[in-house]
Amino acid sequence: MTSEFSLIDQFLEPFDRRGDGLLLGPGDDCALVQISSGMSLCTTVDALVEGVHFLPDLFGDEEIGHKALAINLSDLAAMGARPRWFLCSVACPNDQTRLSRLPGIARGMAALARRAHCLIIGGNFTRADRLSLHITAMGEVPIAQALRRDGARPGDHLFVSGTIGGAALGLQQFLKGELPDQTIRQRQCRPEPRIELGLIARQFASAAMDISDGFLQDIGHLGARSHCGFEIDFSAIPMEPGIVAAGFSPPWALRGGEDYELLLTVPPAKADAFVDACAAKNISVTHIGAAREETQIHWKNAPKDLDLAAGRGFDHYI
Amino acid sequence: MTSEFSLIDQFLEPFDRRGDGLLLGPGDDCALVQISSGMSLCTTVDALVEGVHFLPDLFGDEEIGHKALAINLSDLAAMGARPRWFLCSVACPNDQTRLSRLPGIARGMAALARRAHCLIIGGNFTRADRLSLHITAMGEVPIAQALRRDGARPGDHLFVSGTIGGAALGLQQFLKGELPDQTIRQRQCRPEPRIELGLIARQFASAAMDISDGFLQDIGHLGARSHCGFEIDFSAIPMEPGIVAAGFSPPWALRGGEDYELLLTVPPAKADAFVDACAAKNISVTHIGAAREETQIHWKNAPKDLDLAAGRGFDHYI
Repeated sequence: MTSEFSLIDQFLEPFDRRGDGLLLGPGDDCALVQISSGMSLCTTVDALVEGVHFLPDLFGDEEIGHKALAINLSDLAAMGARPRWFLCSVACPNDQTRLSRLPGIARGMAALARRAHCLIIGGNFTRADRLSLHITAMGEVPIAQALRRDGARPGDHLFVSGTIGGAALGLQQFLKGELPDQTIRQRQCRPEPRIELGLIARQFASAAMDISDGFLQDIGHLGARSHCGFEIDFSAIPMEPGIVAAGFSPPWALRGGEDYELLLTVPPAKADAFVDACAAKNISVTHIGAAREETQIHWKNAPKDLDLAAGRGFDHYI
Repeated sequence: MTSEFSLIDQFLEPFDRRGDGLLLGPGDDCALVQISSGMSLCTTVDALVEGVHFLPDLFGDEEIGHKALAINLSDLAAMGARPRWFLCSVACPNDQTRLSRLPGIARGMAALARRAHCLIIGGNFTRADRLSLHITAMGEVPIAQALRRDGARPGDHLFVSGTIGGAALGLQQFLKGELPDQTIRQRQCRPEPRIELGLIARQFASAAMDISDGFLQDIGHLGARSHCGFEIDFSAIPMEPGIVAAGFSPPWALRGGEDYELLLTVPPAKADAFVDACAAKNISVTHIGAAREETQIHWKNAPKDLDLAAGRGFDHYI
């Protein structure tokens, strides 16, 4: 049994990993390369595949286009980058059912692109058995302000944006044949990349990442890259309202994926100013704990059944 | 019946097409954005899909990896850009037959990346029904030297690199169950991006593009973008040896795709210097005609059966 992460490591093995201009290679939300004195280009690629990342009968055309771009802009946000440009590689079956969805997909993508001031600059069309969209997004971030995963230090305050678990709840309801309510549908089908939060956070935070594979898995990645652990107050985590009413447990929500919220660590001396800056822009962030020396997660106020061994998030290959 | 090009136009319709820093958007081999004074980032995305761009039983693993990167580097070469970085989005079925090919694919890709001094900086893995590789490549080119498709002027000399038709011949032989000889196999499975030629040409040429959809279709694109036509000496076109011996006609070869050679136009005053610079580096370029005011192609020494109405190249959707 091969995990997605060992596949990535194995794939990268034969490649040169260092070179002129490379500031940060694979392993973070984005790569960083130097493009001029003090400024870096921040790039990421992510795919949305029919039947894997979206259910073709349940997602609207515009939702598909929105989500394909949003998951990439979320990676830029997690680095504190300002979105600039993107390229979209479309694979589409040569049948009228799928081809007729492309204009709506483009409209959904274009609406988000316009709001994010991110220009489409290129792309590709190819035939394939399933509809899929592979987007490469590029942004700019001052080198000194880029929010990497490896910057958290013991004592830094831990924040999370928005709410957790809504996207997973939406997917579960779709799979059970139920229709999620409007809020939950948005969380699954129209995740909102936290671009403005990233631009604020880059002035304060020591590290950041977006939550795409589930809170529990991703907090583990953040700790691993920063060589630290976390103390987390379980009861402080902003769960999506309706998780329990829908019959799911909060720990289940922490294993769900696709939240596209940001995890952020902020040095104690800057935490108040960060909270104030977010409040001034009406951006929801919640203080849920702190980074610590010991590399495990130490939970406060956690339910007894919080099974961390089963705390894996989404993996394509297990 | 929708063509690939009208699909692209339709997809792009809802997007903003202008913005800060954008020098050249969709429609050329690459997009160009300004990243510092005088320098542009040159980006392109292209996909290699199992059963569409490669035959999984006939291509070796390393050939698949090589070709996926080569077709992107060819686009950079066509702009005169120096390759710098790339991202690779891999879609792979969760079966051992396909997963076991990934290390060989990575080796083939890494070998070309090393030769081209192009670093992998990011990527993505996702499950899918078929194996496919979507690569976004980035290079740098001084803004004033970028080789766009729209720069050809009447009177410019027309050159083509290498030979034409070998990749199409290789594909035909594969499809007929024959094994191509080593040269022809290389043309189909291991196209060589003309990076060094692009770097020379950017000092001399007025326009360039790579030949990926077939000579006849692509010369039409070059003329359309430059608002000119061409006079071409059919007998001067460097056909791949063996086309006729294998039972195919030279016009057939001009409709085949995947040559990944460069078409170049060079102002008359610079043509000799360009030819000398190529000769000094042992790079094969052939003078085959000239750009002209009238937008049609005027053939000299063409066979009577050269059917230009049937002169379409490869299109995914017709």
